[in-house]
Amino acid sequence: MSDPSSLLGALRVVLVGTSHPGNIGGVARAMKNMGLKDLRLVAPRAQFPHPEAEFRASGATDILNDVVVNDTLEEALADRTLVAGTSARSRHLPWPLLNPRELAGRLQDELRQPEHRIALVFGREDRGLSNEELQLCHLHVHIPTNPEFSSLNLAAAVQVLSYEVRMALVEQAETASRKEDQPFGTEWDAPLATSESLERFFEHLEKTLVDIEFHDPNNPRKSLSRLRRLYLRARPDSNEINMLRGILTSTQKAAGTKK
Amino acid sequence: MSDPSSLLGALRVVLVGTSHPGNIGGVARAMKNMGLKDLRLVAPRAQFPHPEAEFRASGATDILNDVVVNDTLEEALADRTLVAGTSARSRHLPWPLLNPRELAGRLQDELRQPEHRIALVFGREDRGLSNEELQLCHLHVHIPTNPEFSSLNLAAAVQVLSYEVRMALVEQAETASRKEDQPFGTEWDAPLATSESLERFFEHLEKTLVDIEFHDPNNPRKSLSRLRRLYLRARPDSNEINMLRGILTSTQKAAGTKK
Repeated sequence: MSDPSSLLGALRVVLVGTSHPGNIGGVARAMKNMGLKDLRLVAPRAQFPHPEAEFRASGATDILNDVVVNDTLEEALADRTLVAGTSARSRHLPWPLLNPRELAGRLQDELRQPEHRIALVFGREDRGLSNEELQLCHLHVHIPTNPEFSSLNLAAAVQVLSYEVRMALVEQAETASRKEDQPFGTEWDAPLATSESLERFFEHLEKTLVDIEFHDPNNPRKSLSRLRRLYLRARPDSNEINMLRGILTSTQKAAGTKK
Repeated sequence: MSDPSSLLGALRVVLVGTSHPGNIGGVARAMKNMGLKDLRLVAPRAQFPHPEAEFRASGATDILNDVVVNDTLEEALADRTLVAGTSARSRHLPWPLLNPRELAGRLQDELRQPEHRIALVFGREDRGLSNEELQLCHLHVHIPTNPEFSSLNLAAAVQVLSYEVRMALVEQAETASRKEDQPFGTEWDAPLATSESLERFFEHLEKTLVDIEFHDPNNPRKSLSRLRRLYLRARPDSNEINMLRGILTSTQKAAGTKK
């Protein structure tokens, strides 16, 4: 797949009335981690640029250097075709309200088409976006939180939304080129053991348990079933089976039952 | 639905070797936003408690007040039944590797059952978890990032994973129809082994392999890592661990290294 960063570079983040320079840096870092680039500040209350922003950006200084500062939210959104604003759940005027995953689902197709220009808008640390600002947005998005402690750090909110959009693009790409042969969710280093080699291992295991006089005092046959269940659950690969059989052979030699 | 915070309170976050007190505070805030409570620090390099941690916690001081500090990761994990460690993608020994959404899918069922005790482990700001620490984990989780700027802030990483687990619980509750939630898709007959009993088994296994003079001709240390990976993947229950240890004891007796 092509890295989704190339699509995410077009997704604009707009911060309205930010108070703490450290948060601007934290937002830049979160954006760059997820492949976003385009950051706008609307009427920041924080001094900017600021060393605390540089510090928290932790290397995402290219984003800070390219920041555009606007006086009004309207200016920052002027060329956008879709605007999503973050919102607490309760507003007296109901508006289309999505969770971050639903939003990402909506955005993933539009991000692939250059004629769509999307912005995510985040409000002030202490009181979010005003009703007037929210009404500049096509959609509202709400991050589900603990109702008793619901106010996310600004960089954390940007992190969650950026992550969701990136995940939507990654998952879409993976579904398009899905491989069925990765049982552990990752590239593996050896093929899975065949049933035949597993059965040879279980025969060898049974013989070795007799050699070392291992008996389950409660139920000797049941212990073999339990061992089968355990090893089959792990789905051993061919190298692992070879290693387990090597251990059985060493065991038999040490027990004097095999030369 | 009941708020998922009641389930998320049992999910432990473990930070290993954290350098910056501000990050500890940011983690506490991210946890509380998502309904988590149980924070452990392992051998922090940061001074703790610290005013910068208080500041960044922004009201999540209850979590900071209840922090437990451990000297070793083993102590922090001793009573856990499932441990997921955050990891960069490439490791020379592949291990079950999930993305945050896949992990949340795995955890959502187990969180509903009080006998499961889960930990999420996060490494140092500059170099993550060591290979030895990663091998204490059943699963590894990787947050998809921009390959050119992949290192997330610690609080941001905790935010993403906590958010995913919360989302999974919210979505599951919304999907309503509850199946019987079991780790292996069925009623099980014994509780899962704890990390502590698994570690005692691995020590016993290593000693026994020395006793029987088993050596991987290619790489003796790697074979121990491979055995850890295999057994952790199977997630042994407590009866299975007792049985495996019984086999080791019989092996040592047969080899004449134990009476």
